[in-house]
This record gives sequence, structure tokens and C-alpha cells, in this order.
Amino acid sequence: MTPSANLLIASDHAGLPLKEALRKRAPELGITFTDLGPASLASVDYPDYANLLCEKLIASKPGPTTLGILICGSGIGVSIAANRHPEIRAVLAESEEVAKLGREHNHANVLCLGARIVNEELALKIVKSFLAARPDPDQRHLRRIEKLSHRK
Amino acid sequence: MTPSANLLIASDHAGLPLKEALRKRAPELGITFTDLGPASLASVDYPDYANLLCEKLIASKPGPTTLGILICGSGIGVSIAANRHPEIRAVLAESEEVAKLGREHNHANVLCLGARIVNEELALKIVKSFLAARPDPDQRHLRRIEKLSHRK
Repeated sequence: MTPSANLLIASDHAGLPLKEALRKRAPELGITFTDLGPASLASVDYPDYANLLCEKLIASKPGPTTLGILICGSGIGVSIAANRHPEIRAVLAESEEVAKLGREHNHANVLCLGARIVNEELALKIVKSFLAARPDPDQRHLRRIEKLSHRK
Repeated sequence: MTPSANLLIASDHAGLPLKEALRKRAPELGITFTDLGPASLASVDYPDYANLLCEKLIASKPGPTTLGILICGSGIGVSIAANRHPEIRAVLAESEEVAKLGREHNHANVLCLGARIVNEELALKIVKSFLAARPDPDQRHLRRIEKLSHRK
């Protein structure tokens, strides 16, 4: 990512505290965030915000916003919802290594985090790892990614 | 799961060693596995085996085989591929906690593991956690799961 990169970010109510923490620390990450909500702790449904972010991300291509971060309590719900979209490759990461591999091998364009699973410091490390990794253009990865691009 | 439960299992070449290890330890888990391949370490594409397992799982419902395990190098590729299917809710787990939450809150029917991320002992613990958890029938979970059931 270039230092001026802008990422989309969204959550559910359970993910909101970690989303706020990451937004405050955006300068450390060298990025800016466009926050798609929610803005309060009132209970919402994770598929609604995951779909909102994915649709914006798909509509923005090609453009400066090509990556997104989704956060719910465990990260699982948003990762399932995001991967319903054939244009999205979402990685649920509990570690820096998985975030890195998701970007390198699977060309992930969405990172999913669990606010009840990773604390703020680990989440920051995972986001940094995701942003620092580069998609590996090897043909075997591209062939497998192409097979992920079809509706089921 | 009942002690006689049968799970579908599949992998890619990178996931094959962990798949073999889990198959050998099926008695400890109190289950049996139906292995959908591959049977050799020759390079294959993870979407092919993920799709094969998901299609079998969807076709088997309602029936005794209602859960599956998918393994690739990181677990990411198979989790993206599996979640392309609106009937599948796949959880990529690096920890027992995430596997448990995936089953309880998201009613996950597929567990994804990374053979290069979790060792055999941790994988066994994660599978046990997945099998021991019970889907929470709370209305808020059911409402969110219903929202995951539509093609995008």
C-alpha cells in the first residue's frame, strides 16, 4: 500500500470498539479509513455491514480504495458474508502470518478481525502485516483465484 | 455430534499431511471421516476440492453427514471457496475459541484449517472444540444466518 492509501472499514456493534481503536491509530498505519458504520453500539446484523462494505469496494474498482477491513465479535460472521461476493476474497486472521498469506497467495482484498479474539495491539500488527504483504503473481495462485470468481 | 457421526474431509496437497493425521486420530474424536481426496501430494487447486466437499455436504442434507473439514496450507483458500456456496458457513480457525464460536453463533457447517498454521495437536483440539459446540438457536443468530443464505 502507498502511504496515502484509503481503506474502507465497517463492523457490527461488537466490532465497533476495535474499529474505533484502529481508526485512531490510522496515522501509525500510514493510511486513512472511510468508516461505513455503524456509529453506535446499538445491536445490528453483521451481514448488513459486510455487504455494504463489499458493494462499495466492488464499485470502487479500479480506484484508490481497493482494500477493506471488517470487524465483528469473532470475525467469522463478516468473513462468511464477505466471501458470498465472488469479487471479494476475505481472510479471517488471528495472526500476522495468516493475514500475510491471505494477501500473498489468495490476493485477499478484505481483512476480517474478531474484536473478542484479538486485542488492539495484535489487531494493529495483523493490519500492518496485511498492508505490507504483496500479492504473489505466480500463475498457480492466479489460476486458483480465477476458480474463486464464479457464483455458486 | 453423536459418537457415530461421519464427517466429510478434503484438502489440497499442502493440507494432505494434516488430513492424514486427523484421519488416523478419528477414533480419539469419536467420529469417522469420508475422505474426498486428494490421495497424493501432487499439486492440485484448493477450489476444486473445496467445491467437491461443499456439493456433497449440500446434497447430503438432511442426513447423517452434515459437517465437513477442509484443509489447505493456510486454510484461507478453502474458506473463501467454501463460503461462495450460500448453503455453507465455513469458519477458518486458528484457535479452539474461534471454532466454538463459529459453531455456536454462525452455525458453521465447515471447519477450515491451515496445515502450515496449526500443528497436529492444536488441530485436534480445534476439531474437538468444533464438534463439542452446539448451535445457539437464539433468534438474533438465526436472523443473521438467514441473511447469509442469499446469492450475491
